[in-house]
Amino acid sequence: MTATVQHAPKEQGRPRPGGDGPSSEPAAPEQISLPRHLLSAGDLNRATAEHVLSTAQRLEQAIAGREVRKLPTLRGRTVVNLFFEDSTRTRISFELAAKRLSADVITFSAKGSSVSKGESLKDTAWTLQAMGADAVVCRHSSSGAPQQLSAWVDGHVINAGDGTHEHPTQALLDAYTLRRHLGALAGRRIVVVGDVLHSRVARSNVLLLSTLGAEVTLVAPPTLLPVGVQSWPVQVSYDLDASLVGADAVMMLRVQRERMSGAFFPTAREYSRSYGLDERRRALIAPHGIVLHPGPMNRGMEITPQVADGAGSVIVEQVANGVTVRMAVLYLLLSGEIETSSGGSL
Amino acid sequence: MTATVQHAPKEQGRPRPGGDGPSSEPAAPEQISLPRHLLSAGDLNRATAEHVLSTAQRLEQAIAGREVRKLPTLRGRTVVNLFFEDSTRTRISFELAAKRLSADVITFSAKGSSVSKGESLKDTAWTLQAMGADAVVCRHSSSGAPQQLSAWVDGHVINAGDGTHEHPTQALLDAYTLRRHLGALAGRRIVVVGDVLHSRVARSNVLLLSTLGAEVTLVAPPTLLPVGVQSWPVQVSYDLDASLVGADAVMMLRVQRERMSGAFFPTAREYSRSYGLDERRRALIAPHGIVLHPGPMNRGMEITPQVADGAGSVIVEQVANGVTVRMAVLYLLLSGEIETSSGGSL
Amino acid sequence: MTATVQHAPKEQGRPRPGGDGPSSEPAAPEQISLPRHLLSAGDLNRATAEHVLSTAQRLEQAIAGREVRKLPTLRGRTVVNLFFEDSTRTRISFELAAKRLSADVITFSAKGSSVSKGESLKDTAWTLQAMGADAVVCRHSSSGAPQQLSAWVDGHVINAGDGTHEHPTQALLDAYTLRRHLGALAGRRIVVVGDVLHSRVARSNVLLLSTLGAEVTLVAPPTLLPVGVQSWPVQVSYDLDASLVGADAVMMLRVQRERMSGAFFPTAREYSRSYGLDERRRALIAPHGIVLHPGPMNRGMEITPQVADGAGSVIVEQVANGVTVRMAVLYLLLSGEIETSSGGSL
Repeated sequence: MTATVQHAPKEQGRPRPGGDGPSSEPAAPEQISLPRHLLSAGDLNRATAEHVLSTAQRLEQAIAGREVRKLPTLRGRTVVNLFFEDSTRTRISFELAAKRLSADVITFSAKGSSVSKGESLKDTAWTLQAMGADAVVCRHSSSGAPQQLSAWVDGHVINAGDGTHEHPTQALLDAYTLRRHLGALAGRRIVVVGDVLHSRVARSNVLLLSTLGAEVTLVAPPTLLPVGVQSWPVQVSYDLDASLVGADAVMMLRVQRERMSGAFFPTAREYSRSYGLDERRRALIAPHGIVLHPGPMNRGMEITPQVADGAGSVIVEQVANGVTVRMAVLYLLLSGEIETSSGGSL
Repeated sequence: MTATVQHAPKEQGRPRPGGDGPSSEPAAPEQISLPRHLLSAGDLNRATAEHVLSTAQRLEQAIAGREVRKLPTLRGRTVVNLFFEDSTRTRISFELAAKRLSADVITFSAKGSSVSKGESLKDTAWTLQAMGADAVVCRHSSSGAPQQLSAWVDGHVINAGDGTHEHPTQALLDAYTLRRHLGALAGRRIVVVGDVLHSRVARSNVLLLSTLGAEVTLVAPPTLLPVGVQSWPVQVSYDLDASLVGADAVMMLRVQRERMSGAFFPTAREYSRSYGLDERRRALIAPHGIVLHPGPMNRGMEITPQVADGAGSVIVEQVANGVTVRMAVLYLLLSGEIETSSGGSL
Repeated sequence: MTATVQHAPKEQGRPRPGGDGPSSEPAAPEQISLPRHLLSAGDLNRATAEHVLSTAQRLEQAIAGREVRKLPTLRGRTVVNLFFEDSTRTRISFELAAKRLSADVITFSAKGSSVSKGESLKDTAWTLQAMGADAVVCRHSSSGAPQQLSAWVDGHVINAGDGTHEHPTQALLDAYTLRRHLGALAGRRIVVVGDVLHSRVARSNVLLLSTLGAEVTLVAPPTLLPVGVQSWPVQVSYDLDASLVGADAVMMLRVQRERMSGAFFPTAREYSRSYGLDERRRALIAPHGIVLHPGPMNRGMEITPQVADGAGSVIVEQVANGVTVRMAVLYLLLSGEIETSSGGSL
């Protein structure tokens, strides 16, 4: 009996849209297959992605039931946070996740590091390797840096955001949040709105959500859509109102204010009017629909405070789920477990 | 039997000066009443303040008697140091206090944080909340920021210094230090000298010391006294020598060099001559009297090196007591204990 | 029976070069004598240095054999990393070493510290002392700062690099690495190449290697040799090729690019041609010979990538050994153990 068969009755409510997912494997008997590194949301086939999400759920329950909210699983293991780009939120989320599994956490931020003395990524990798890093959580402004890193270390590399490429744990936490509210994602309609061109969050979400069988619609100004988006497993629209009608969820992307000066869109006011989520628009989605944002928000820009803090907003819950999902990723990669049909050992 | 009655024989040597304390409660049967957050030294009535100090004393003894200088009390709890303003000394003091109680500590400094991406204090609060922070130790250059924060998080907020407002754990460590050397503080005469106008240390000390029944005299240049000081429960004097005669303790405030350029006082030399503590002045206080300074000192400015390092100086001990008192605050807020007349559980 | 007698059969393969070591003690019955602080490689006599290296070896084996790669030895102890100068690599190495011994680690970096408010090193020392630091790992741009610090704290001070003076744990990790590959170091010929003038790594290595009986040859441009090098227990040469022939090891020093603009040597190309290690030169050393570099490397400058990554290069292993050796130093200083002939307690 395969793991997919085991998961299917629980997770798979609707038929999967055939053929437009990024995975070319046959839909039927998929095996859980944990990659050595988590570099892209595309590294996870459906069974594996669902296994990560189920593990997160079980970890959440395991912790909730304990007086001491920690598990001893990763005692003596070292997780290095290698952040070449500032992100307190993501760094702390991984740090908490690792500490709740009793791992030791070392933070290596590029400022004040040997990197400023001209040390190459390769030498940094070897240093971490030599010091015995069991996992390296890497954030870098260059797309592909974590991939390169993974060629040089024995430890498990987790991409915590690379350039405009990917941010797979963000996609996992989004999927986890969506599943909690919507159940199985197959056939669910998710609208992703904003600067898709520069968004690693969008890229990872498109891959993972379509793997999980959801129908993704991207809405963005034409200047903020990547070349080749036609080949992505998504619908593209320039009409936000029409796309929102009846949607199961809307995910607003962060506007990078530093890009406002460019020619990407005329003014903040104009952007807000065309692509911002206000209460009128929020009312267009399904009654059970939810609102997501990866944070940090520009309140009043891509989302109004009323919507950010209003009914159906799961933005704060996303942050909490981030810790849970990262615990699952660290747990699965570092303990090397694959759940078997007899139930697994968690 | 109330806790006050229990404490009274031990702690209360002299009658309390009636009516000039900041608390309007009747002096007699006060109950220990731990606030949810520690935002102001004024949050603590006398019984509660004495309970915090006694708890600190018991923690100090408990740790001293152990081979491993740690208590398992807060295992699995997360304490976040949220520092919008640099203060290595205070940050490390809280970090050590939390670690000695076996809590996990996360440091969130404003530099390199999402705050620089324009995230509001509110969103930062919700992030910490969602991540499961059990306590948030907050330092901020704006008076009132920790108070605002406390409206948005379920965890316990501890004010680690906000603008020119308050720094309650500093007042607690000062009181703890004073009590160790002077016994009960009721009726003790404490002289506080320097830039009261900008000093959160002075504000918190005035509140706590008068709650504990001490008689506080403020000595400062007229330009460095706050408007409305007349209504504070203190004496005010411009004559340092006269005020020091027979005092039980003198607390020197730090001169903020960055304010030297303003019109607050003419020159460093002039300030030092009028309001600095040298050996001649130190000899004016009572033979058992002690010298305090919250640090870091400007040696040669508000205090001479001879006095800072001389007899009766407890400045180094204050630092040690800071860790102890912060352990007590974290312990009491997070374990939610209120000592009962039957003895408590520490 | 002294410890030296015990070690001798294992460690001392060749006769020690008489009289040119920095230690003036008689060669014969040396006692293990752990200093209170580790400020200079010269603080260790031969028996003690070998004891540190043997302890490192046993710690490495002890950890390797455990499922949880941690020892409980220093639980409840506090190690402070006091870094006035950036060095992520060294800081993390000490942090990992301390955590693997279960100590609590506090990082105190000069940026954002009270030091920027004008607090003196003395007051910082007293602060750490008062907070109960059991060990202070100090890196400072001024030669002698850790020595000064050691006068003010009760805890153990470990010099993690001070100005152009010393970096004793680097020398210990180099010696540990050399011993693993070459066995006992007595009579072994080690060539140290580069900017000796500004190198604390070179100074500490010269002291330790000669204490251990190795024969050290320094090769450097005349402008990069210190005054008085004639009195050091080393050979000096300006001919790199000749010196390398048959050497047991070659240790390349890092070129400080910031010194390139000075008059120390003409151009990078010129330096590289005269003092860089390429494959032709690497082939001159003994067949069993090894290549060391303290890192971070300037690939293509003092060492070619082919040599850095080629056969006999132990540069990555040095990093791993750094953690092990620092564990041994922390363990020995903090647990106050001196191995006795009956076997010690590790």
